[in-house]
Amino acid sequence: MDPQRLLDETFRAALAAADPARVLAAQLPPPPAGRTVVVGAGKAAASMARALDEAWPAPLEGLVVTRYEHGLDCPRIEVVEAAHPVPDAAGREAAQRILELARGLGPDDLLLCLISGGGSALLALPAEGLELADKQAVNKALLASGAAIDEMNCVRKHLSAIKGGRLAAAAHPARVVTLAVSDVPDDDPATIASGPTVGDPTSFADARAILEKYGIEPPEAVRRHLEAAAEETPKPDDPRLAADSFRLIARPQDSLEAAAAVARRAGVTPVILGADIEGEAREVARVMAGVAKQVRRFGQPAPAPCLLLSGGETTVTLRAPKDGGGGRGGRNAEFLLALAVALEGLEGVHALACDTDGIDGSEDNAGARLAPDSLARAAARGLDAKALLAANDAYRFFAGLDDLIVTGPTRTNVNDFRAILVT
Amino acid sequence: MDPQRLLDETFRAALAAADPARVLAAQLPPPPAGRTVVVGAGKAAASMARALDEAWPAPLEGLVVTRYEHGLDCPRIEVVEAAHPVPDAAGREAAQRILELARGLGPDDLLLCLISGGGSALLALPAEGLELADKQAVNKALLASGAAIDEMNCVRKHLSAIKGGRLAAAAHPARVVTLAVSDVPDDDPATIASGPTVGDPTSFADARAILEKYGIEPPEAVRRHLEAAAEETPKPDDPRLAADSFRLIARPQDSLEAAAAVARRAGVTPVILGADIEGEAREVARVMAGVAKQVRRFGQPAPAPCLLLSGGETTVTLRAPKDGGGGRGGRNAEFLLALAVALEGLEGVHALACDTDGIDGSEDNAGARLAPDSLARAAARGLDAKALLAANDAYRFFAGLDDLIVTGPTRTNVNDFRAILVT
Repeated sequence: MDPQRLLDETFRAALAAADPARVLAAQLPPPPAGRTVVVGAGKAAASMARALDEAWPAPLEGLVVTRYEHGLDCPRIEVVEAAHPVPDAAGREAAQRILELARGLGPDDLLLCLISGGGSALLALPAEGLELADKQAVNKALLASGAAIDEMNCVRKHLSAIKGGRLAAAAHPARVVTLAVSDVPDDDPATIASGPTVGDPTSFADARAILEKYGIEPPEAVRRHLEAAAEETPKPDDPRLAADSFRLIARPQDSLEAAAAVARRAGVTPVILGADIEGEAREVARVMAGVAKQVRRFGQPAPAPCLLLSGGETTVTLRAPKDGGGGRGGRNAEFLLALAVALEGLEGVHALACDTDGIDGSEDNAGARLAPDSLARAAARGLDAKALLAANDAYRFFAGLDDLIVTGPTRTNVNDFRAILVT
Repeated sequence: MDPQRLLDETFRAALAAADPARVLAAQLPPPPAGRTVVVGAGKAAASMARALDEAWPAPLEGLVVTRYEHGLDCPRIEVVEAAHPVPDAAGREAAQRILELARGLGPDDLLLCLISGGGSALLALPAEGLELADKQAVNKALLASGAAIDEMNCVRKHLSAIKGGRLAAAAHPARVVTLAVSDVPDDDPATIASGPTVGDPTSFADARAILEKYGIEPPEAVRRHLEAAAEETPKPDDPRLAADSFRLIARPQDSLEAAAAVARRAGVTPVILGADIEGEAREVARVMAGVAKQVRRFGQPAPAPCLLLSGGETTVTLRAPKDGGGGRGGRNAEFLLALAVALEGLEGVHALACDTDGIDGSEDNAGARLAPDSLARAAARGLDAKALLAANDAYRFFAGLDDLIVTGPTRTNVNDFRAILVT
């Protein structure tokens, strides 16, 4: 068994399990008596649209929005590109058109909604009277406040014309079927792309209370909008949403299971530690190093050869350039560099960490690979692993070793994929 | 099965597996023809001395040094107490007397050396011409420099009259048998209490290079001492150490295995994730929360009921009082509070985290316990978990819930013990 080859194969299997071309068709509803209109947003929107276009046996029309460079030609569905993670006018215009498509439907029609990670930014349509800049100011304040993700989503949904179930409500009385690729904890439908077709239990009053709790003074237009509370989000028991259905076509767990199956076939015991592991990337790496050492030394939690798998989204707290930071590298490269430092070249441990969307942070790589000799090879090339880690400069480390993994946009997104092979 | 009762029982089993009264006697060598002299240092020194005293079938004399409040009466062995972690004159005097005891031995004699965590500070004897203050200045600079633990130990051993095998060399030509309780990664004999009886592969030149690498300007006396390089530490192949032997009587892994056996008997699947898990306490907690969620949701890495076990030593980076820090709490309490925040009251997850030495940081508790209702009970008492975590004030959180675990000094030390029960 070639360790790096096996790791690469597990990653390919993880991507395949999340590829709309393979998993979407099986989840389609029967065609309606009336029109079928497709809308959608997210990093997987173009590949979902194409898979749908190929599989759908009836007339079809529609519009989806994806990230720049994530588009694909699609015969019957228009695919537009827009900015992510900071929304732009292209996304706003697409969101407006999507809302109008939904509004034009009747009781015999079907709205197919294709949702995936990144859809929240790509489907940014401020509520009437608000500008994108207003939403962005509030978003920024929330991010800096320490508010929980649930709290941020509550406020966002109450500043949007399309999120928090509003898209589904607009399509009433048409039937709405949502097909989703999950990149969020617990695969919560209300969280993926801020749930444009999912009823929202929170209220304008909740949104106001959250801003107050964190001492956030919103722009005047936002304050007025939240006070006016003119059009509440549809609640989970809203009759307009009663006949709608939500189908997960791919989840992080499915990709980990696919990787586990590859390992098993190679005679390697897979250990899935978590589909939703969070934490500072470099600290998560130290924990994983401890588990890898335990496999080597005591054959726990499973005897070698063993593949430690995890998903979810780590975070990177950037060091300021004035404090020695300012390097390049996404969270997967940083995780892997910290793993290298913690393992100190430990024999028999190879690893791979990639973002399944193909873009690790804002770089051109999906992630990187690590071998027992990586530290030694780096030292021979004058690359100081600890110094580069301190500078958040993991990209340079792995680029210098020619160990970046570059896939380009994968047009799907089930969050991070981390695999540590212990032999 | 009462979850908290089971967790308490696993912790008791972990302590019992590291209790010298239970595990020391089986590891004793036969008595020598000549004298048997006992020396030792560490948090377990008094309990090791007493266990030895009770089991030894021949004449016996000696001196061990332990931490204040860790002493025990011992009929044939003198037990003195000294300061930890910052050495004091009592420890220095004890170390001097221990070295003299070793020097007085002949070829038919046996030196029994009882070593455990904390022994490094308790056995602080500066090399001739140096003061404790000199060593402390260098120690402080090393800690702030980012030097690796191996590098710090190399310098320390070259500023000491007793560490790095010097104690064993002083006992030559007597036989030396070391009995050790491990609290260090990989149970490395050279690391436990800085290896007073274990050959040291590093040199004065290495120590000088390390200070230079980190730009540390040592006190003048230290500089002169390292330049003079008058008496090198005994190397691993030193003939004076040839007949010596080193026996681990307790390791973190043994305690985790004992806890695992308790779980198994209760019908709970134990999963030992690592005997040596390191990382920032609050981030380690987030990872463990992710694993606990995976057990609940997908029955991985093992189906519930399942006990996630880990050892090792997490770290706590204190927030400055001016930034809102300044609270009380050791690393185990902080781990557990962060776990509470990450789990958000998840049903079916109970946990316990304690330092096996009985002292979590500098508080009076060994650790604490966590239940699914801890957050809710805390909120009812006006305790804000997130705010207390941000202030490093975990002690107050668990004290307020009456959920501290207080054992007093256990007189052993196999580092931290963390158990998460998922039902």
